[in-house]
Amino acid sequence: MPDADYELSDDDANVHHVWDNSLDPAVTVEPGDVVRFECRDAVDGQVGPDSTAEDFGNVSFDPVHPLTGPVYVEGAEPGDVLEVELLDLEHRGWGYTGFMPGDMGLGLLPEDFEDPGYHAWNIEDGVCEFVDGIEVPADPFPGTIGNAPAEPGEHDTLPPRDVGGNMDVKHLTGGATVYLPVECEGALFSTGDCHAAQGDGEVCVTGVEAPMFVTARFDVRTDKDIEQPEFESDHPYTPTGADEPMYGTTGIAPDLMDATKEAVRHMISHLHEERGLTRGEAYILCSAAVDLKVSEVVDAPNWTVTAYLPESIFPN
Amino acid sequence: MPDADYELSDDDANVHHVWDNSLDPAVTVEPGDVVRFECRDAVDGQVGPDSTAEDFGNVSFDPVHPLTGPVYVEGAEPGDVLEVELLDLEHRGWGYTGFMPGDMGLGLLPEDFEDPGYHAWNIEDGVCEFVDGIEVPADPFPGTIGNAPAEPGEHDTLPPRDVGGNMDVKHLTGGATVYLPVECEGALFSTGDCHAAQGDGEVCVTGVEAPMFVTARFDVRTDKDIEQPEFESDHPYTPTGADEPMYGTTGIAPDLMDATKEAVRHMISHLHEERGLTRGEAYILCSAAVDLKVSEVVDAPNWTVTAYLPESIFPN
Repeated sequence: MPDADYELSDDDANVHHVWDNSLDPAVTVEPGDVVRFECRDAVDGQVGPDSTAEDFGNVSFDPVHPLTGPVYVEGAEPGDVLEVELLDLEHRGWGYTGFMPGDMGLGLLPEDFEDPGYHAWNIEDGVCEFVDGIEVPADPFPGTIGNAPAEPGEHDTLPPRDVGGNMDVKHLTGGATVYLPVECEGALFSTGDCHAAQGDGEVCVTGVEAPMFVTARFDVRTDKDIEQPEFESDHPYTPTGADEPMYGTTGIAPDLMDATKEAVRHMISHLHEERGLTRGEAYILCSAAVDLKVSEVVDAPNWTVTAYLPESIFPN
Repeated sequence: MPDADYELSDDDANVHHVWDNSLDPAVTVEPGDVVRFECRDAVDGQVGPDSTAEDFGNVSFDPVHPLTGPVYVEGAEPGDVLEVELLDLEHRGWGYTGFMPGDMGLGLLPEDFEDPGYHAWNIEDGVCEFVDGIEVPADPFPGTIGNAPAEPGEHDTLPPRDVGGNMDVKHLTGGATVYLPVECEGALFSTGDCHAAQGDGEVCVTGVEAPMFVTARFDVRTDKDIEQPEFESDHPYTPTGADEPMYGTTGIAPDLMDATKEAVRHMISHLHEERGLTRGEAYILCSAAVDLKVSEVVDAPNWTVTAYLPESIFPN
């Protein structure tokens, strides 16, 4: 890996909690430069390795997502594409996954979980350690990666937008290249909210949240024309990166979100009944390791969403 | 592979076009028996290797999905689960993918495609041949696999239901085991609508549709309790079954279906602009080879759906 041209610490001066194109750049770089970002965890240190479900239930989401940046990239103009080559991600040996009390309305199934849940993961030897010997392979990526939106003012970091942001695309791992539409001069790139692992869907609202370093190389592309982020990746589509045994559940319903919810509910029941996890543990494990696929969106009036559980995460 | 205990030809006597629990069984089998089903293609021979887009636009979908069966499995009672072990699928060297004129309202993007499209695939040496040297690996599965629903009367075969049916789950390939809820005595299993390949989503409304033989072993499970189909599979999550280069597009929108449409639209633009395909060819290729994933459904108010294009399908 090349040495970074710039290091951005997670000091307050380099951290912001909203998207806002009037923020002063933390650094100005040239195309080709490499920046190493120190990124805080998603809830900015409100929980740690010894926290409880109750602690997590009391976390404030205002503000959420401390992001490191913005980086002003020389030459990037509205209509261009910022190319971000993710060179490396370094976690610090721990992370957490939690869900909030249902009445807060966060996550895919708030109506199914009245009380909060929390798991602090030890991350060692390439795996995130869950209960009962279950190990989820670590494959770190930034949950939030994006440019500043053109629209003036402060914008919540929770939703992703045309310029990227909190996309939670689990395949933006080390080695991937991300293309982000530029809406402001200099692009004004920021990243953070890193996950050591996550299932497609991030169903309980958190991946394996972890403070992390992100190292990326920037370039400006004037030959690409995209409306929303695109990317290249050859990273795992299964935990081992090869064909391996999976258990699948389906959700079949006339609304795609309802089908998604049903697929996850069935997986939670499977993990509870066949693997002995509590429903809360199962919900957390779904968010960390179960991938959601859209199997069909054309067999009207019912759509099929499938949830894929990799069997390799269980001890033999 | 074990010899089949029963062969069901695709003669009219063994073929039906609706789900209806009053249909006479084509055969009655014991748990453990193996049945080989001859299955017609999804539109029952209305198109062939030499058909055109115009021909496909004139196809009648009434009736659609000729299914082979039903199989009455001794001992299967409502509340049980039918275990279906898919032992083998044999195509006949050709298939087709088409989309209808937009005003028919079928497929994910009828508003984007006014005129119909059609491609007849030669299937040879394990690949389905597209235009420009593009090869999509063949990995056959039954698009429709299910039991009869409890509700009396005739039911359209297009939507999947709690008992399965037209689920289009591309991972129900040879070697997979499918679990189907039983709602009627004897289960009354049928299958058909086979695909030689398909992307998750089946976006243009057809996979690589192909007449095929399906060989399956049946068992009755009274120890499983499921609400909708579940399955075990260790078949490809990428065409090669290993990590490989992919190009991804995202769809970001406050409605999950809109996000799905945007991801596919962006992939169609990518295939058109970067790979020189017509938009119609790109739509067909998306349906045959591009996988849709739900990356997040929790970063309110915007959800992220990603479309994954395997780069390995292109000639070097």
